[in-house]
This record gives sequence, C-alpha cells and structure tokens, in this order.
Amino acid sequence: MFLRNCWYVAAYSSEIGDMPLARTFLNEPVLLYRTVGGKPVALEDRCCHRNLPLSMGRREGDCIRCGYHGLKFDAAGQCVEIPGQKEIPREAQVRSYPVVERWNFVWIWMGDVSKCDESQLPHWDCANDTSVTTTLGNNEKPLPMKCNWELNNDNLLDLVHVVYIHAATLGGAGLDTTPVTTERFDRSIKMTRWSEHADPPPLLARLAGFNSPDADRWQATVCEIPSHCTIDVGFCTHGTIGRDGDWDQGSRLRALITATPETDTTSFMFYCQCRNFAVGDAEVSRNFIGHVRDIFMEDITVMEGQQRINSAMPNAPRIEIRADTPVVAMHRLVEKFAAAEKLSS
Amino acid sequence: MFLRNCWYVAAYSSEIGDMPLARTFLNEPVLLYRTVGGKPVALEDRCCHRNLPLSMGRREGDCIRCGYHGLKFDAAGQCVEIPGQKEIPREAQVRSYPVVERWNFVWIWMGDVSKCDESQLPHWDCANDTSVTTTLGNNEKPLPMKCNWELNNDNLLDLVHVVYIHAATLGGAGLDTTPVTTERFDRSIKMTRWSEHADPPPLLARLAGFNSPDADRWQATVCEIPSHCTIDVGFCTHGTIGRDGDWDQGSRLRALITATPETDTTSFMFYCQCRNFAVGDAEVSRNFIGHVRDIFMEDITVMEGQQRINSAMPNAPRIEIRADTPVVAMHRLVEKFAAAEKLSS
Amino acid sequence: MFLRNCWYVAAYSSEIGDMPLARTFLNEPVLLYRTVGGKPVALEDRCCHRNLPLSMGRREGDCIRCGYHGLKFDAAGQCVEIPGQKEIPREAQVRSYPVVERWNFVWIWMGDVSKCDESQLPHWDCANDTSVTTTLGNNEKPLPMKCNWELNNDNLLDLVHVVYIHAATLGGAGLDTTPVTTERFDRSIKMTRWSEHADPPPLLARLAGFNSPDADRWQATVCEIPSHCTIDVGFCTHGTIGRDGDWDQGSRLRALITATPETDTTSFMFYCQCRNFAVGDAEVSRNFIGHVRDIFMEDITVMEGQQRINSAMPNAPRIEIRADTPVVAMHRLVEKFAAAEKLSS
Repeated sequence: MFLRNCWYVAAYSSEIGDMPLARTFLNEPVLLYRTVGGKPVALEDRCCHRNLPLSMGRREGDCIRCGYHGLKFDAAGQCVEIPGQKEIPREAQVRSYPVVERWNFVWIWMGDVSKCDESQLPHWDCANDTSVTTTLGNNEKPLPMKCNWELNNDNLLDLVHVVYIHAATLGGAGLDTTPVTTERFDRSIKMTRWSEHADPPPLLARLAGFNSPDADRWQATVCEIPSHCTIDVGFCTHGTIGRDGDWDQGSRLRALITATPETDTTSFMFYCQCRNFAVGDAEVSRNFIGHVRDIFMEDITVMEGQQRINSAMPNAPRIEIRADTPVVAMHRLVEKFAAAEKLSS
Repeated sequence: MFLRNCWYVAAYSSEIGDMPLARTFLNEPVLLYRTVGGKPVALEDRCCHRNLPLSMGRREGDCIRCGYHGLKFDAAGQCVEIPGQKEIPREAQVRSYPVVERWNFVWIWMGDVSKCDESQLPHWDCANDTSVTTTLGNNEKPLPMKCNWELNNDNLLDLVHVVYIHAATLGGAGLDTTPVTTERFDRSIKMTRWSEHADPPPLLARLAGFNSPDADRWQATVCEIPSHCTIDVGFCTHGTIGRDGDWDQGSRLRALITATPETDTTSFMFYCQCRNFAVGDAEVSRNFIGHVRDIFMEDITVMEGQQRINSAMPNAPRIEIRADTPVVAMHRLVEKFAAAEKLSS
Repeated sequence: MFLRNCWYVAAYSSEIGDMPLARTFLNEPVLLYRTVGGKPVALEDRCCHRNLPLSMGRREGDCIRCGYHGLKFDAAGQCVEIPGQKEIPREAQVRSYPVVERWNFVWIWMGDVSKCDESQLPHWDCANDTSVTTTLGNNEKPLPMKCNWELNNDNLLDLVHVVYIHAATLGGAGLDTTPVTTERFDRSIKMTRWSEHADPPPLLARLAGFNSPDADRWQATVCEIPSHCTIDVGFCTHGTIGRDGDWDQGSRLRALITATPETDTTSFMFYCQCRNFAVGDAEVSRNFIGHVRDIFMEDITVMEGQQRINSAMPNAPRIEIRADTPVVAMHRLVEKFAAAEKLSS
C-alpha cells in the first residue's frame, strides 16, 4: 500500500544533472533531469510510442529525445516532435510529475496533480538553520532497503531499539524503561522520551566533547505523512534544561530521515543530520557521516529481516507492547490517509 | 502469445552434432542432435518415465538413452528399450518435432505435425546464391534476448530506428523523413523506403569502397510469418538504378534475421548477411561479423528496455505514428494467424 | 505437499551449539540452539512482536532475546520479558517444536504436538552398533537439493539407477535386469534385489579388499515415513550367504539417508554410512566420506534435472515401468498418510 497524494524525496539535489537519472517510485519508472536553467524535471520513464525507457534516450535542450524512433518530449512531458510527420497527436505525452527542490533534496508528487500542495512538505527548516551544521547522508546517494517503506516509520517512532540495535554507538542503560508520550496531530505523530540521570549516546557525547557524570537525555520523533521523520536527540547536564526548556541549550542533533517507496518491498532511505555541536568542524562531519551510515545499515539489516518474515508469513499472529503506542498511532494515520485517497479516486 | 504452426530456427547447423543440445522453444524443452547419418533430430527433452531431461543422458547409435533408468528412445521419440522388462508400453514415447535443414540453419516445427509444410519456410534463397558472400551470425551462436520475440519484428519493420540506435554505423541524415510504403501479402508484410540524395550507411559504404558524393539509398524489409525478416539495404550513385531497377547493380546487403521464442519474455536471435560487395574477402567478412553483432546488441539493449516497461506497465497507454504502418500491419497478420490456430485447435 | 506429523532431521548434532542456527523446514523459519545444559531447542524463527527473525537476536542463558526491542523468550517459546512493561500478554509466545537427539542427528516434529511420538523415529539403530564404523555425511553439513523431498525417496527405492548414474563407483553389469521384490508395511516400503554372479560395487569392493571372481550382491531399501531410507548394500563370494542368510557375514554397508523439505522445491539431504569392513580405519573413512559426497552429488544433479521439468511441465504424461513397483508403493503410502493428516486437521 502506498500513499500517492504526498511528497516523497526523489533524489539528493546533487544527484540530478544533465544526464537522465532513472529511478522507480511506487512501482512507476521515473526519469529525472535538470533543464538548462537548472530546474529539476520528473517524467514518466517510458516513451508513449513503443515503451522504451526515455532514460535510454538523450537530452536536447530542455527536452529528451527517445532513443528508438526519435520522439522528442519537453519538460512537461508533451511530445513536441515526431520524425517523419508534422501533426502530433494530442495524446502523445508522458506523465510529468510535480517536483520541488528544498533542503538539498528534490521532492516529487506521485499522486493527483490537482491536489499537489507545497504546504504538505515536512517541517524540515532546521536544515537551513545557519546555527547548525548539516551533513547529508551517505555521500548523497540513497541507501537501498529491501523492505516496505512503512517499516522505517516503525523503526524511527520506537527509539527504544537503540538499546538493542545500536548498543555501541547510541544505546544507554535505562532507556528502554523510560515511558514515552505520544501526541497525535492532523498529519503527524510525535513520540517523546525524556530520561533523567541517563547515559548520553556514546558516539554523540564523544563528538560533542560531553563528559558530565549526570546527564538528562531526550529522544523525540515527529513522523509526518507519509514517512518524513524528524528525530530530535540530545543531552545536557542533569537539570540544566528540563523537558520543557530550550533544547538548543544542550547538545542537540536533529536527523531528518525519510523512506521513499520503490516497490512494495523495496525503498530508498534519504537523510541528513543537523547538529548544534562541533559546528563547522569538517573532520567531525566526515567521521559523523560514516558513523551514521553504519548505524543506519544496522537498522536496514533489521528491517530487511522483518520483511523476509512479513513476506513469508503474512498472517502470522503478532502482539503489541506498550512502546508501540506511537507506532500504532502512525499506522492509523497512514490508514486514514489511504482511505481518504481511495474515496477521492 | 506464440504461433505454433510455423517454422522456427532451432539452431545454426554447426551447433548440432553428436552431443545432445538442450534448448527451450515456446516454453518447451527440446533436445537436438544428429543421427549417425547426419540427419538432425528434435525430441522433447524429457524422459516420459521420471521427467529427467534426456539431454542429461547419452547417445547410442541414432538413439538417446536416459541417464536415470536407462530407457532408450529412437530418433522418432519411440521408447525401444526398458531395462528389466521386455514389453514396452505403447505410450512410452516422447514428442518428436519435424525438422528441416536449410541455409545453414536447422528449422523446427513446434505445432500440429499434420499441418507441417516445408513450403512455409521463408524465402531466403539468396543465402545459397553464389554471387554473394554470406556470413553467419555471431560465430554461429544465437544472440539471447530478454524480450518477447515480436519486438524483433517491430524493430526490423521500422528501420528509421537506425538514425537513433545505430547513428555511427548505419544512420544517415534525412532517413527518418522519407516516407515508407507498406505492402500486405498472405503470409508477409513488406516495408520499403527509397531515399534519394541520401547518405549511405557509413559502415557499409566503407566496406564497399563507396564514396560517391550523391547517393540513393534503400531499405526494404519483408517479414514472413512468424518472425522471418529479409532486410534489403543498399545504395548507389544517385540516379543510376532507381527504385524499380535492379538493386544488384548497387552495393546490396540482405540480412536474414529471425527471432525464435524461448519463453514469453526471452528469445533467440539467429541471422546471416548476404552481400554483393567485397565478395569472398575473408578479412571483410571477419570485420563485418563483429560489426553486425555490435549493431544487433544495440537493438537488443533497446528491445530489452521495452520489455522491462511492457512487463511492468502492460496497460500503459501508447500512441501510433506514421512510421508504424508496416509494424501494425504485421501485428494484424500475426493476430490473424493466431486466431486461425485457436479455431483449428 | 508435506507430511507434518512425523519426524525430520533438522541438523547434524554437531551443527547445533550456543549460537542460533536458522533453517527453514516445510516453508517455516526455525531457529535451533542448545540450552546451557546441552538440550537442543527448536523455536519459530520470528519474534511475535515485529517479525524480526529471532536468530538475529542473542542468547541469554537458556533464552533468546530479540535483536529489535529486546523481548526475551524461553526455550519453550514463552515470552518472559518485555522491556518497559511488567505484564506479559498470554499470547506473547512463539511456536516451540519438539526435538529429540538420536544417532548424531537432531530430529524435529513439525506437526501437531499432541501426536508427537518418538516411536515413529526410523529404525536406524545400526548407527549405534559398535561392530560397524559409522561415517557422517559431508563434514556434517546437509547437502542442499533444489528439488522436492519426495524425489529422494524415488531415487533410493529404485537402485537400478546406479547402473546409469554411478557406473564408475557403484554400477555393475546385469543389475538392471534382476527383478526386485517389494514388501509393504504400515509405515514403510521395502525393496530387495538379490543378484547372483554379479559384479560387486567397484568402490566398495576396493575399500573392502574384496576380489572374489564370483560374487553375489544385494541391494535393499527400507523407506520409512516420510523420507527415512535405510539402504543395505553388500556382496559376498557366491553361495556363501544366500538371500536369507546373515548379511553381516559379507561386506555390508548400510546407508541411512533422509531428505528434509525446506520448501516445495528445495530440500536438505542428511546421511550417514555404517560399514562392517575396514572397521575403525580412519583413512578409509576419510576417503569414503568424499566418495559418498561425490556419488550423492550425481544423484542430486539428476533430481534437480527432474525438478526443472516437473516445475515446467507439471501435467506432462508419464509412464510407469516394472522397476517402479516399490516407488509407486511408497507414493501410495505417503498419500495415505497425507489424507489421514487432512482428515484429522
């Protein structure tokens, strides 16, 4: 199941240039390139004549010419030239997808164009904040995941898993026994855990030069429809900020992470990290990018393991636990949006 | 969809010898070998006892003995020996397919044996013409194609594609704007394009030593049921032959090309080329075989790209263009033969 | 089709230790390990919370802890700890499979636990006999087979195939013309062939130092439900024992072989060999283990060939031959047990 009337990250900005980039989203082949003026374009990756992927053709100005019989399509997907004939049938067009470029990502709208709405982009403005240093994920290539996109929401709304999956880098004693609060909004779910007298994440404490013997630690995830997560994690000397204080006074990292569905059982993970410590330190950034990739590969290994069982035993009975509250709330929200799409289509 | 009551190329003649050759046609496993006397044989590649492929057995005289329990089958598919018992049940037989050897190819009839008819072989006698030099394809091994067989008909009845796919070797300005004529026959479709003041195919002009500054150029494809194409291409100094003249007066190449279905989405391409220039020149032949293979690999890359989209989006809307007339005519002819087979079965 | 209410070999004893071993049986993911006390355990390899394979978790005492959210399961499959909450729902459990360790194999019962019955293990006590030397198969790793488990029964109840598949190692003239006797029991089928004045199996004769010019040779297979075969093969100087005599007076090898279904078209072969010649000779054992593996790989090549045809042409007509009597009897017995399982479920 996919939500269609929403934004997905199609690529890191730096991935899209003159050459056609072919990628599949929601089972649909899509072609991405930039116009001469630099505007990103997303077209159906299929010539409407003989079904050759247009990505096997060549760029001409702002257009792309099919590599089989030379039909030329403009950036809106309209065929503007058919070699050997003057008239161009009206239906000679391929689908053009709305795209918008924001926060070093190119976003694509896979659904009903009439419902396309930039206000539904996630609230990721911290990536533009000059008081933090933002590092883009995995050398600006998406991490491929052999699992359904929604497993990534589950993963990020349930951060107790750091104790088990990321013990060495992010884990900390006691984290799994601190209860979480769950907040429900129109288009998002928020999970918050505030742990007092807790161990800070070892990797972050080291990079931030934090060595207070008594820390408070927080984890908060906002997951916006469909799969855009803002993970806010940080720590401070115990009692110096408090749950309702200004978290920027502590060592704070916001990880912006999203999963774009490729097929029902494969996805792309895109992400960046905004930190308010070691600001501008290129060496820390370099190290950090590698560590984050390793941590996310641990998550992906787990999610791919889940997918294998989900595919093999779709009807196996399952239980829920207390920590699932935000996960289940997000499932319900996604189902609600899916039902609304079905009604309106 | 396959046509069954027709001939297909099963192998180059040189591929079939004493050792069993296993190949799948129209989803059926087939075993090919030669009798001691040199006659090609095609049997169902399956022992009717325990389903071991007979190609895993061994030759004995004109027979093949199963590698599991030793049942022996003669070249007509009849079981003639069952170790441990005297009587042989009448139904102890495997299917035998009619085969005929012609033009360095072994042809197989996959359909109703009572309808088998050698007069339905294609008109490829130019391959026996002593005034031309004939080169067999790809060192006499079929080119495997991960696409449906009919895409090859489409490709060869629509030679404007040379401008886009084979620009460096065969392409030429203006080709894509010369209209084609389409002729419909009982068992074939013919497409003809005669271009005046046209660039000759660079590769052929070079091999033929042709450097006239003003050339006429032709492309003509006859596609016979189901997939047997004769591509007649050539060129001459402008005005020296004319569309209705004797094309042998120019530099002329006839490419005999066919696609044999392996499965619904895979095929084998077999071919040879008959040229009336550089006759008997072994060095030109060697070069030419390599160039042709490279050119056909360009076509196969395109056809496999189409197949990926055809499989992923079977119902995507498509348009037709003027150059499609012969392609569409051939589709209709194949459909007519398929309907006739359905009626008679 | 699988029989469920029966024992299967899950692993060689030596394969199971502290670390979780993941293996699929009858399409179900299973996790195998030993308790601290050394008792083998088989659990459903799936956390009932979020479907992560438990084999991706870690051992704690006799328990296994899920690698995602830390749920802990005891050796009976009961969840005994959920981090972050006190109460454990009753349905927080995964399936536990009965296991029993016998003859250097760990056996698993995949069906109805209430019907689990150790008396239905096969009669393989010769593997404990101190008068023979027993060698375990393939360095105690199962041989993977890309075929349905039942093809292995067919193979072993029809030993005439040694003439064709194993001519160099086991074959012998005349074997395929000696009739077999078939005996039908409640849970097994027995096939016996007694050949007088026959060639002994070359490999065994060499290892046993047997060089009598006139030999009697036997082959007998007992196949017990579902797939547990005892192959009794041997030879003696002609007339010294006789069909009804004490076969231990000759050179005798009993091969205990079973196929455990992994999926409908893949299986594991487990086996050991008990010989009464070259007893205790480690060098002969080493050689013998390698030869047997090579011989079984010949069988697997054949069975995988059958499976390819069975999958591609499930409805192709087949015949039966006289040598099939024990094979067909076993088919009927398996069908009878399958029908009984269906009735009782």
